[in-house]
Amino acid sequence: MHILITGAAGMIGRKLTTRLVAEGALNGRPIEKLTLIDVVAPQKPEKFSGKVEAAAADIADPAAVRAAIAGRPEAIFHLAGVVSGEAEVDFGKGMRVNLDGSRALFEAIRAVGEDYRPRLVFTSSIAVFGAPFPPAIGDEFHLTPLTSYGTQKAAVELLLADYTRRGFLDGVGIRLPSIVVRPGRPNKAASGFFSSIIREPLNGEEAVLPVADSVLHWHASPRAAVGFLIHAAGLDAGKLGPRVNLTMPGVCCTVAEQIAALRRIAGDRVASRIRREPDPLVARIVAGWPSRFDPARALALGFRAEASFDDIIRVHIADELGGKIAA
Amino acid sequence: MHILITGAAGMIGRKLTTRLVAEGALNGRPIEKLTLIDVVAPQKPEKFSGKVEAAAADIADPAAVRAAIAGRPEAIFHLAGVVSGEAEVDFGKGMRVNLDGSRALFEAIRAVGEDYRPRLVFTSSIAVFGAPFPPAIGDEFHLTPLTSYGTQKAAVELLLADYTRRGFLDGVGIRLPSIVVRPGRPNKAASGFFSSIIREPLNGEEAVLPVADSVLHWHASPRAAVGFLIHAAGLDAGKLGPRVNLTMPGVCCTVAEQIAALRRIAGDRVASRIRREPDPLVARIVAGWPSRFDPARALALGFRAEASFDDIIRVHIADELGGKIAA
Repeated sequence: MHILITGAAGMIGRKLTTRLVAEGALNGRPIEKLTLIDVVAPQKPEKFSGKVEAAAADIADPAAVRAAIAGRPEAIFHLAGVVSGEAEVDFGKGMRVNLDGSRALFEAIRAVGEDYRPRLVFTSSIAVFGAPFPPAIGDEFHLTPLTSYGTQKAAVELLLADYTRRGFLDGVGIRLPSIVVRPGRPNKAASGFFSSIIREPLNGEEAVLPVADSVLHWHASPRAAVGFLIHAAGLDAGKLGPRVNLTMPGVCCTVAEQIAALRRIAGDRVASRIRREPDPLVARIVAGWPSRFDPARALALGFRAEASFDDIIRVHIADELGGKIAA
Repeated sequence: MHILITGAAGMIGRKLTTRLVAEGALNGRPIEKLTLIDVVAPQKPEKFSGKVEAAAADIADPAAVRAAIAGRPEAIFHLAGVVSGEAEVDFGKGMRVNLDGSRALFEAIRAVGEDYRPRLVFTSSIAVFGAPFPPAIGDEFHLTPLTSYGTQKAAVELLLADYTRRGFLDGVGIRLPSIVVRPGRPNKAASGFFSSIIREPLNGEEAVLPVADSVLHWHASPRAAVGFLIHAAGLDAGKLGPRVNLTMPGVCCTVAEQIAALRRIAGDRVASRIRREPDPLVARIVAGWPSRFDPARALALGFRAEASFDDIIRVHIADELGGKIAA
């Protein structure tokens, strides 16, 4: 089994690589080779007995993408992309990387020819949805993104379905929830506080909450996201049918419930490190985001997220903090 | 008022041009100039006192599109595209003309700069929808096209909404029903029989019906399509909101009802010129098409189709046959 990961240097890409190396197999077949590309060269995983190619590559450069495909990887995880904030600030860059880059990858696969039809797992996002919403967004709700990032993801979903229908590749698109708790330092993403209010208090630091406690959102852990990717890679195309893009399951909860979960797990002192400092701009952005889904198809196809926000916090403590909390 | 029409040499483009010239105004403002482009140079309209530029232009050639935009048309009707059958047979051509061509147009407009924000009316299609369907497709049903043509139209809808949201242009996308009765000779489109079974009998010729009488579909006349375009050009963007793509109203009826309407209007002898010759391939293609919509938003915004299939036949007799039927 030869696996290509685009965006392999990103947070999810690194966790996916680590998990694949640890398991040594995908869909029950031993992994012999990993091709890892990103805008900066991804680190080669340690303790992997197979072959690794790790290279810096511009996903929107057809020649670079053809080179990544030349070894005919049987499974492709297409994670590469610029994030929501950057796609909004730099419209041309978002279009080029997120839309043209995906298309360059699909075209490179198509150009290989008839007998090459890899499973391609594409990470879409709940940003493909835009308000107003029904109380729970079902699998047949239309995509009306309110960001350029969401627009680019939705357009690639359409292309993925058509390239799959025509037999050029074997695609599965998974719409990731907001991933928390992201490891690392605070960033400037509007959604950053969802991770900050858990991560910083657990590190003994103060976190700022810019929105009301009543804000409702849809979450899964980085570990669950990697699980979605691996499950998607093994999905039976016959069961999937022509609607290859799926909203992933997640945990729907308010900020108040997230803080209550933190208090249950880490105590009052940790939870008291959250300082409320309303930011009307962030509040307005977040108000346009979807909050609750009814991901019936993904659940029926066996995708699983955490059962509660408590579990999401426990995953963070286990995977990032070695099981320890700064009380 | 300066108006640009892409795809101006096509059936709808010619009818739109004729209507605009006859009315002499759009949105209450006199038309001073028409720019007409298509893959072959469109004919210049007679009896138009304003300026006309009619040119052959490849919509996917950025330089050609920039030239068409150079005169800063205030209203743009973007009709250019390859049809469903061709986009399915020649995947690369469909992507190039329907997707890249639309994007080249949008980019040319964006490149002009901040103070240029034309109303752009884009003709999408009910081909953006793919089975299975609910009994009536509402305004919030998702787009899961089952053709490359429908995929390309759906992707352009997404781009149109985002370019509009960002203020690069002022877009309205209208999803046309199957347009009947198309004038001219029979063609090989899978949907061609919908026009043939009315047009040929009215011309004293035999027509072949390849599907069951029970087939249900969604129709409007060419005259209604031109009406949609003109109404869209004058639509208040404030009332439209960020969901700029609308399913147009139409007449939902079975083939049996269409034949009954023909009999009512033109008599038994005309209706008897339809010969049933089942074609399993056509039947299978048609089975994947949407049949009934609930276009509540378009109706609320003032779009109007015919009230019955009888009216659609009457429009054909009036507009194409000078009011006369070959009894």
